[in-house]
Amino acid sequence: MRKFNGEADAALRRGIRIYHLNIGQPDIITPEAYYQALKNFSQPVLSYAPSAGVPELIDAVRSYYGGIGTALAREDILVTTGGSEALQMTMAALLDDGDEIIIPEPFYPNYHTSVTLAGAKIHPLTTCPEEGYRYAFRERVEACINEHTRAIMITNPGNPTGAVLSPEELKLMLDIARENRLFIICDEVYREFVYGGEPLMSALQFQGYEENVIVIDSVSKRFSACGARIGLLISRNKAFMHQAMKWCQCRLCASTVDQLASAALYSVGSDYFASVREEYKRRRDTLMAKLKTIPGLICEEPKGAFYVMAALPVDDADTFQHWLLNEFNDHGDTVMFACGEPFYATPGKGKNEVRMAYVLKQEDLERAMDVLAAAIKKYNETH
Amino acid sequence: MRKFNGEADAALRRGIRIYHLNIGQPDIITPEAYYQALKNFSQPVLSYAPSAGVPELIDAVRSYYGGIGTALAREDILVTTGGSEALQMTMAALLDDGDEIIIPEPFYPNYHTSVTLAGAKIHPLTTCPEEGYRYAFRERVEACINEHTRAIMITNPGNPTGAVLSPEELKLMLDIARENRLFIICDEVYREFVYGGEPLMSALQFQGYEENVIVIDSVSKRFSACGARIGLLISRNKAFMHQAMKWCQCRLCASTVDQLASAALYSVGSDYFASVREEYKRRRDTLMAKLKTIPGLICEEPKGAFYVMAALPVDDADTFQHWLLNEFNDHGDTVMFACGEPFYATPGKGKNEVRMAYVLKQEDLERAMDVLAAAIKKYNETH
Repeated sequence: MRKFNGEADAALRRGIRIYHLNIGQPDIITPEAYYQALKNFSQPVLSYAPSAGVPELIDAVRSYYGGIGTALAREDILVTTGGSEALQMTMAALLDDGDEIIIPEPFYPNYHTSVTLAGAKIHPLTTCPEEGYRYAFRERVEACINEHTRAIMITNPGNPTGAVLSPEELKLMLDIARENRLFIICDEVYREFVYGGEPLMSALQFQGYEENVIVIDSVSKRFSACGARIGLLISRNKAFMHQAMKWCQCRLCASTVDQLASAALYSVGSDYFASVREEYKRRRDTLMAKLKTIPGLICEEPKGAFYVMAALPVDDADTFQHWLLNEFNDHGDTVMFACGEPFYATPGKGKNEVRMAYVLKQEDLERAMDVLAAAIKKYNETH
Repeated sequence: MRKFNGEADAALRRGIRIYHLNIGQPDIITPEAYYQALKNFSQPVLSYAPSAGVPELIDAVRSYYGGIGTALAREDILVTTGGSEALQMTMAALLDDGDEIIIPEPFYPNYHTSVTLAGAKIHPLTTCPEEGYRYAFRERVEACINEHTRAIMITNPGNPTGAVLSPEELKLMLDIARENRLFIICDEVYREFVYGGEPLMSALQFQGYEENVIVIDSVSKRFSACGARIGLLISRNKAFMHQAMKWCQCRLCASTVDQLASAALYSVGSDYFASVREEYKRRRDTLMAKLKTIPGLICEEPKGAFYVMAALPVDDADTFQHWLLNEFNDHGDTVMFACGEPFYATPGKGKNEVRMAYVLKQEDLERAMDVLAAAIKKYNETH
């Protein structure tokens, strides 16, 4: 997703303004609790933290899950360097050469890197906007299972689709995993961002799936603290956690200061989540209203997270992005999005699709959509 | 190295005081510049840093190497989450299933984990205390090279041995790597800790080895900032750096705040390094004086880093450590060290050896050695 950064830098040097819809970097102010914790940090020696994480953060996370009726033991939680590391260590622990993991596509492209590094491969469960990117259909999931399958991975709410599982759909996915003795890895880093008023359940809230469920969580999006690089790996499967702990010990620990400051972030109340959710909902509505006016563009309203996947009326999103950065501007403005192909494991899929993150404020989003509409028109006139 | 932590916690709960010689956690006060940078951090949104690292830190590192006459371009440096991550990404980038990497043993045990995760194996170049753990002998190194060899890895100054390469020895290792078209990975995280007045050269200071040399560096030991988790991967080999950058992009970035605060650490002057070096030298001398009085213990004076490897007059260091934590105390005191076996790749080696980190203040080191001497005596009377 960062491959156009060089061209973007060059465009900036030419004085072009770029509206960044390409990465999920929220512009929401990080809660003051983080900065206050930095100021208060006074251990004279900045020493290694425990490999599993500092107790202050682990207890803050337990308290957060306690708030949704989920009791976690300290040993059910490992603090990681971002959700990214939780993902890496999960794949390294679960997958061997030749193994398969079922992931609904489109999916977050770094899943692909982590699975590949572990020597395994993604068995994609293809979804489409016409069905709201839904994938929790027993027969379709079971059709992906074979003797190489080790796990199912889901993102709820979905990145890049914004699809949200109903409690019944989530339970179905858990049931299929348990019946087939598979791990089910649930990336729930966007769990506070749901816009329809639907109850969003964590996989940790269901009883009887303790051996199967692995949850990946993070402070990055929840508290607009992406730079803290603090994630969480949560599971009640002791054998798995034992394996994951080996990785933790190998890299010694996550950042001491970021862990303590992240523990402080958990002190913000539910009104914080409500106001952030409200802000993102407004942005989503702004974005969708504009997208609907672009002729030939196909997309589905996201129910959660802060991304929308769209099929553009262009031949190739990569070529279009290149052109946007090098040959186009509208009164000095252009846009960046994440090109669709890396979100798919099926070859050829996603060629004209893009993911847009609605992490900019309203007026910027509106302007970005106007620039996009103008660009699509001009691109198709000249190509 | 952290496997006895559970037994140690239990001992603490029984009121036992443990002298920790087991991990390289210095007790030296972290420079104030780090804390000041935390206090000054005021970006309203704690956003992702660039995947390669923040320019402030990269430039601080360039300036540090400039101070030893080594010009580095920005693109020669990647900021990592601790030296540990630099190690992980190097192994993942260089090694495939069945590949071999030559590493003098005893070595830092996490090398083993990183190499194994990459599917490769360590070809050990065995050293011994009688020869001061030296390994830079052309015929011995060349005897380890075969068609599977991809790289040589050295630690200079050595962990756990404290051995320091002379400029001639280092050049010989670089020559062997270049002649055989191998990478040479130089872990130089202890480079400021040399006690003999010998000039310690970085592999980066030699001309003509640009395609071969990879340096792993870190702020952890240099500035007593282990909890910052900021390391560095440095190489002028563009193809390698391109591969390493893929890993960097996959995990998005290292901690934003820790990077900025680490950049500030580089503002400490050479007098800081001189005073820390003096303190460690005194500790080494204290430790060596005491070790020499323990009958049957074999060790070599370390020339750098802050570890000493010693063969104890006991049957098995693991059994002895277990006994020290569970059955022994001297007026309520006991000791922990790192058991020797994980420092070796050759099966059976290191069984009665231990690594001790001299990271405690003088009086604690003296007391720890007296406790060790009493323990060895009692253990051998009862076993």
